[in-house]
Amino acid sequence: MKALVYEGVGQKAWKEKEQPAIEQPTDAIVRVTHTTICGTLPTGHEIGALNGEVSLGDTVAIVGSGPIGLAALLTARFYSPGRIIMVDPDENRLAVARQLGATDTVSADPVETVMSLTDGEGVDVAMEAVGIPETFDTCQRILRPGGRLANIGVHGRSVELRLEELWIKNVTVRTGLVNTNTIPVLMRFLETGGIDAESLITHRFALDEIEKAYEVFSRAASEKAIKMLLTA
Amino acid sequence: MKALVYEGVGQKAWKEKEQPAIEQPTDAIVRVTHTTICGTLPTGHEIGALNGEVSLGDTVAIVGSGPIGLAALLTARFYSPGRIIMVDPDENRLAVARQLGATDTVSADPVETVMSLTDGEGVDVAMEAVGIPETFDTCQRILRPGGRLANIGVHGRSVELRLEELWIKNVTVRTGLVNTNTIPVLMRFLETGGIDAESLITHRFALDEIEKAYEVFSRAASEKAIKMLLTA
Repeated sequence: MKALVYEGVGQKAWKEKEQPAIEQPTDAIVRVTHTTICGTLPTGHEIGALNGEVSLGDTVAIVGSGPIGLAALLTARFYSPGRIIMVDPDENRLAVARQLGATDTVSADPVETVMSLTDGEGVDVAMEAVGIPETFDTCQRILRPGGRLANIGVHGRSVELRLEELWIKNVTVRTGLVNTNTIPVLMRFLETGGIDAESLITHRFALDEIEKAYEVFSRAASEKAIKMLLTA
Repeated sequence: MKALVYEGVGQKAWKEKEQPAIEQPTDAIVRVTHTTICGTLPTGHEIGALNGEVSLGDTVAIVGSGPIGLAALLTARFYSPGRIIMVDPDENRLAVARQLGATDTVSADPVETVMSLTDGEGVDVAMEAVGIPETFDTCQRILRPGGRLANIGVHGRSVELRLEELWIKNVTVRTGLVNTNTIPVLMRFLETGGIDAESLITHRFALDEIEKAYEVFSRAASEKAIKMLLTA
């Protein structure tokens, strides 16, 4: 069979791959119909909302309003925070965030703006949903005493941890990779409409248009792309 | 009355201070007889053992074997970890740590030695009980996936957080200042002998020898000093 194989940033190639077959009793052939459910939503939920211990009335800031940040927003709302501040330089993404329940959106000067929005107190929960030192730094600087920093981003470099300020602030920093144990409960919400995952889908393609889908997604900002749905 | 006033590192002066007096119904005159209970033990317990979530059978490493590190050792034992590895360059302190229940002690090459002691797995809990970048780095490098890093040290500088390795390891980093809410339970253990706080006291002086006590403590390593007890 042919498969479109990812070979690094911007590099994809059609390759001949073996037809999948059951060889061992423990093998399974998985037809992926819901990548949103397999990865995005549980990551936002488990590594964002749960690791950040979002609680009733909390002020939450989510730095990064891509699919993962928006999934964190959708699932943080289960725990009834008082306020969800979404941070992203892209106004299109912030518009989607407002539709999905963000109470505030910030596109510039994130530290100063979030501190000002919170009367200088900072936030109970800061979620890092980008994966670069700058956004991690924003998160640690807007954290109030007792706050939780949930790192969702995939990082390629070390970051500076401001321990000279944080040592006395009773903060918690958590990292993690999704373990998907909350998929069953997320499925129930999808079935009942309790999560509007459809709202993350900005583009739809047939499966044989996959190359075009990748090409459009490579210009995500100008195309206002968040999630692409491919249907067989 | 005269008081010995701390004015910075190595700087102390006898000064004339007002005699304390009750002026408001909410005032109290506190005669400090147990600084170990007021500060050291609850810090080790709350910011070390509790923030590190020490649990049955855990492998714990405590980096720094001064009074705070030893207090973390004494109180971590309440939660029955399987192994407590104490790290310090000072062999005198490590000897005290072994008397207080450390199962392993490490005086050099801490990362390599702890990784070797744990068959390359690392530790469930790493406690930073010094307050410098080097010891924080040791803690983050010996942490196994799912591990907890409890920062007890008072830091004057930022540290490098190795997020490019930690983002996928499901780790928790906590900071904090003692809030002393566990003093009542610690008092009960002191009364019954369940904590041997006396073992931290290496030197005893009368209160009017306070200057000599400070002078001896300024050479803590060569004097094998851990805690100094002043009695009126």
